[in-house]
Amino acid sequence: MSAGPFAVIGLGCIGGSLARTLAARGVPARAWSASAADREQAAAAGVPVARSLDDAVRGAAVAVLAVPLSAVRDAAVAAHAAAPEALILHTAGLQGAGFVGVPAALHDRVLGTHPLAGAASSGFAASREGLFAGCAVSIESRAGAAAREAAESLWRLAGAARFDYREAAEHDLLITWVSHLPQLAATALAGTLASSGLSARDGGPGLLGATRLAASSFEMWAPLLAPGRVELECALDALGAEIARLRRALASRDESELANLWESARAWRLSAGDRP
Amino acid sequence: MSAGPFAVIGLGCIGGSLARTLAARGVPARAWSASAADREQAAAAGVPVARSLDDAVRGAAVAVLAVPLSAVRDAAVAAHAAAPEALILHTAGLQGAGFVGVPAALHDRVLGTHPLAGAASSGFAASREGLFAGCAVSIESRAGAAAREAAESLWRLAGAARFDYREAAEHDLLITWVSHLPQLAATALAGTLASSGLSARDGGPGLLGATRLAASSFEMWAPLLAPGRVELECALDALGAEIARLRRALASRDESELANLWESARAWRLSAGDRP
Repeated sequence: MSAGPFAVIGLGCIGGSLARTLAARGVPARAWSASAADREQAAAAGVPVARSLDDAVRGAAVAVLAVPLSAVRDAAVAAHAAAPEALILHTAGLQGAGFVGVPAALHDRVLGTHPLAGAASSGFAASREGLFAGCAVSIESRAGAAAREAAESLWRLAGAARFDYREAAEHDLLITWVSHLPQLAATALAGTLASSGLSARDGGPGLLGATRLAASSFEMWAPLLAPGRVELECALDALGAEIARLRRALASRDESELANLWESARAWRLSAGDRP
Repeated sequence: MSAGPFAVIGLGCIGGSLARTLAARGVPARAWSASAADREQAAAAGVPVARSLDDAVRGAAVAVLAVPLSAVRDAAVAAHAAAPEALILHTAGLQGAGFVGVPAALHDRVLGTHPLAGAASSGFAASREGLFAGCAVSIESRAGAAAREAAESLWRLAGAARFDYREAAEHDLLITWVSHLPQLAATALAGTLASSGLSARDGGPGLLGATRLAASSFEMWAPLLAPGRVELECALDALGAEIARLRRALASRDESELANLWESARAWRLSAGDRP
C-alpha cells in the first residue's frame, strides 16, 4: 500500500491541523469539509481544498475522516464509494462498532486511528500546524501489516511520535478515563463555579487550566457521551468517591490521610514527565 | 511612603519571580530565603541576595514575605524587628487573621497582597521573570491610602495589571472557590486515574492540563487546607453534587439536562476571555 496521496475529510481542529501540517511539509493531500467556513479558512491557510468529498477522496490511497463521531458512518460510505481501494482512517474518540456504526461490508477498509491531541475550541480556527508533534496515536489492533504501515506513515508525517495498538473496546475503556472523565470533571468544576456566582476572571491561571476543557462544544461531545455508557458512569462514581475521601479527610482534620491522597495523585501527575 | 527600596523574603515560585522581575527592571531590591538552594539559584540568576533576613529587610520601605502561610507570622515579626518603619506585605493564599496569625501589635504594618499567579512546581526553579505579567492582585481593603499606593506600585513594577480590594474574609471565601477547589478537583481527578491503574502517559494534553495542579506540593498546601474549613467543604460538596447531576443526566440519557449543564459550564469558561 502506497503512503499517499492522502485525502483529509473534515477541517476542524484535527482535520485542519492534519491538512495544514501535510501542506506545510509538501505532502500531496486534498481536503474537504462539509463546512463552507472551514473550507474557506483552510484554502486561505494554503490547504489544497477539493470541490467535494468525492473529489478529495478519488485517487487517494488513504482517506482520513476527521469528522464528528456521528458523521463517521456516512463519510466512510461516501469515501469508499469514491475510492473503493482506499484505506479509510477515522479519528473519532470512540472506536467500537456500536459507536461508529460503519456497515459490516466496509469493516476491513475502515480503521480507527485516534490521535491524543486537540483543543477545547473547534473548527478550522482551532487548528494549527504542529498540533500532533510528539503525540501518541491509538490504532485499532485489528489492522493488518499494510494498514499499520500506511496509518503510521501518515501520522508520522503529521508529527506523531508513538503508536499504541489496542482493540477498539480496550481503546474506548481507556479513553473514557483519560479523555471523557477529565472533560466531565472540567465541565463539573466550571459548572460549580458558574453556580457559585463567581466570575471566571476572579481566578488565576490554575483555575483557567483546570477548566480549559469546559470550553469544548457540546455538539462535538454529545455523541461521545450518549447513549448512557456504563464505563463513564463508573469513572464519574470513582471521581465522586475520591472527592468525598478528600472532603472527609479535611473535615476530620486527618492530615495523614490527606497527605496520602495528595501524594498518590501528585506522584501520578509527576510521572507524566512534562514540566508542570 | 516611598516606593522602595524593597526586600523580598522567600525565593520560591512567587518570591523568586518577584525578585528576578525587579532585578531585570533595575529596581533596588534585596532578597533572602531560608532555603540555601533557592538563595544560590537566585544569586546565579542575578538576584541580589542578602546575608540574612535582617540584612535584606534593613532599610527597606517595603518587605514582601513570599513564604508559606505557616511561616508568615515569624517572618513578619522578624521583618518588623529589623525595619520597624517598613510596610510588610505577605502573599499567602489566605489572609484571615486566624490563618496568618500575625500578632495584633503588627496588624497595621502587615498587609495581605495575593497575586493570582503561580505554578504547580515550587522552589526558585519554578520562578520566572514575567510570572505576574497582567495578573490580578487581591489586596486587603483595610489598607490605607499610603499602603495601597506602595503595594500597587510594587506589584505594578512586577507586572500586575489589576488590583482588587477585599476584606480578608471575603478574599478567603473567594479564593476557596477559585483556587483551593480547582486544586482539590485536580488532585481528585489525578487520584482517580492513579487508582484506575492507568499511566499519566496514556492521556493527551487535555488530561495533562486538567490535572496540572495535582503536581503541587502538599507541603505548601497543607497549611492552606487545614484546619478543616467549612467553606472548602461546601465547595467540595457543590462539586460532588455537580458531578452527580452530570452522571444522572448521562445514565438517564437526558440529553437536554446534559446540554443545560454543559452550556452553563461552557459559557462560564468562555467568559474568561482567554483563548481556550
